[in-house]
Amino acid sequence: MSHKMILDTDPGIDDAMAIFTAMAHPEIELLGLTTTFGNVSVAQATQNALSLVEMAGLDIPVAQGVSTPWVKALAPFPDFVHGADGFGNLDLEAPKRKAVSSSAAEFIVEQVNRYPHEISLVAVGPLGNLATALKLDPSITSKVKQVVIMGGAIATDGNVSPVAEANILSDPHAAEKVMAAHWPVVIVGLDVTHQVVLSPELFDEIRDNNPKVGQFMHDAAEFYTAFYSSVRHINGCYAHDVSAVAYVVEPDIFGTESGEVCVATEGVAIGQTIMSRYGIPYPLNFWEDRPKQTACMTVDDQRLITLFKTALTNSTWQS
Amino acid sequence: MSHKMILDTDPGIDDAMAIFTAMAHPEIELLGLTTTFGNVSVAQATQNALSLVEMAGLDIPVAQGVSTPWVKALAPFPDFVHGADGFGNLDLEAPKRKAVSSSAAEFIVEQVNRYPHEISLVAVGPLGNLATALKLDPSITSKVKQVVIMGGAIATDGNVSPVAEANILSDPHAAEKVMAAHWPVVIVGLDVTHQVVLSPELFDEIRDNNPKVGQFMHDAAEFYTAFYSSVRHINGCYAHDVSAVAYVVEPDIFGTESGEVCVATEGVAIGQTIMSRYGIPYPLNFWEDRPKQTACMTVDDQRLITLFKTALTNSTWQS
Repeated sequence: MSHKMILDTDPGIDDAMAIFTAMAHPEIELLGLTTTFGNVSVAQATQNALSLVEMAGLDIPVAQGVSTPWVKALAPFPDFVHGADGFGNLDLEAPKRKAVSSSAAEFIVEQVNRYPHEISLVAVGPLGNLATALKLDPSITSKVKQVVIMGGAIATDGNVSPVAEANILSDPHAAEKVMAAHWPVVIVGLDVTHQVVLSPELFDEIRDNNPKVGQFMHDAAEFYTAFYSSVRHINGCYAHDVSAVAYVVEPDIFGTESGEVCVATEGVAIGQTIMSRYGIPYPLNFWEDRPKQTACMTVDDQRLITLFKTALTNSTWQS
Repeated sequence: MSHKMILDTDPGIDDAMAIFTAMAHPEIELLGLTTTFGNVSVAQATQNALSLVEMAGLDIPVAQGVSTPWVKALAPFPDFVHGADGFGNLDLEAPKRKAVSSSAAEFIVEQVNRYPHEISLVAVGPLGNLATALKLDPSITSKVKQVVIMGGAIATDGNVSPVAEANILSDPHAAEKVMAAHWPVVIVGLDVTHQVVLSPELFDEIRDNNPKVGQFMHDAAEFYTAFYSSVRHINGCYAHDVSAVAYVVEPDIFGTESGEVCVATEGVAIGQTIMSRYGIPYPLNFWEDRPKQTACMTVDDQRLITLFKTALTNSTWQS
């Protein structure tokens, strides 16, 4: 079985892990990459996406998306996490290929209408492109197979505040639209991604077994790992974005819960994803009448690591 | 050792449990009760506090406090939890005694200045009286021994929204002032109170062994338990307010964590108590420069139940 996928991304080092996994997994048909501001500017994200396509020797369209959040002001890019270039300051040569002329939202709408009920829309950055696509063609809610998001923190602490996760905080108003829409959203957030550590030894193996992108992936991961080892005191880095791609092909790696979701768009909780999981009729019920979405709450870390390692060292990279 | 205590309360059935415990515990010197709107109107809360004092045959001053929240509109009182009269619709006779002429905030300020560093201020309702006392005399922050609050939910779900606890939601702006003040706050919230179930059999024992208030406590608890068994599917009721009183005399019943606390005062997260517990320098840092407060995160439920049962059946009630 092959899963048609559009990957909405702001590469970003862990985005590169997700993109390479989606490119190489035998059960994924990657229809295109759409880009957004987030880890870097949207211009840099587009250039980075094109570089990864070129590095892999593939022909996958890249469509550029939104450059700023829906409402709030653009925050500084986290160069201490991903480097100023998004790839740990490796300063890659500019890619030769160009983005397609469609915007990210146009590309999403076009593809979803072309392949109704077939496409998994996987978003691993801020959610402005998805919100824009919803505005452009509200009918996509009934035509997308599923919307899988790396973002949010349901019952665990955040990474940019005690309650907020970075992708959601980057554009909480867009996230709120995506969570409120009547399409099946799967949240792959910090509840699971903070349970999976990708070790330096894993990236050594990828370097040694992937002649096309292994050295790059290894060197970029080194920068990313340095951030996590200093701030979160782990030996490696978290498997954020690749987890959302993994969900599409092996959903049973994860244990899920369901509930209505609201996103805090103001005040000290801004960027928090709040899910009503217990079916309790609260007096304060912003959650009423929302669609039930799904959140990944547990993960088999070894299966996830194996999926990533297998995708990054399989025969795709030898030819 | 005797702990001087002022109990700020909105009786309320579980407030009655806390008040009787404070009255009867041999190591507590209850200086007074201050009342607030919350479970009922402040007028009803004051009448109820006076009734409990009268029922116990004691001479403890009651000072009436705030009738409305600091900023937000007054919400309907939760008569489905505590009854229209606050005591499960037992419709007690009006008490003969009257409240003192001082307001709750004036009483707090007066007593704290009279007994510097000796008083545990225990607040088991919305926090308007404490915020008003802080405004009246900011110097009390360095003169109160500790401020112990039944309220909030740190790493567990709320009871009036997925993230908000009822006392904090009733007056989030007052709670925000109390958490931001440089005095030692101990949060005894849903993280622990939802771990302790007081059974119908316990209230039978109290009825059979407390000739003064046992029948009343039993009958009121029956109403409260009916609410919890229908909504939370437990056989009994949670030990909310009495837990804060218990903390003063046996703090080691609880396991605690510490961190800076902000209260959400707007949006979908309104009423949430957000604690920064991990010492991580978040990009979004409303928590910076706040005092570190304490939150109870674990509890020995059997010790708490024993403390309550012992206080409600000891020799105080026989004479």
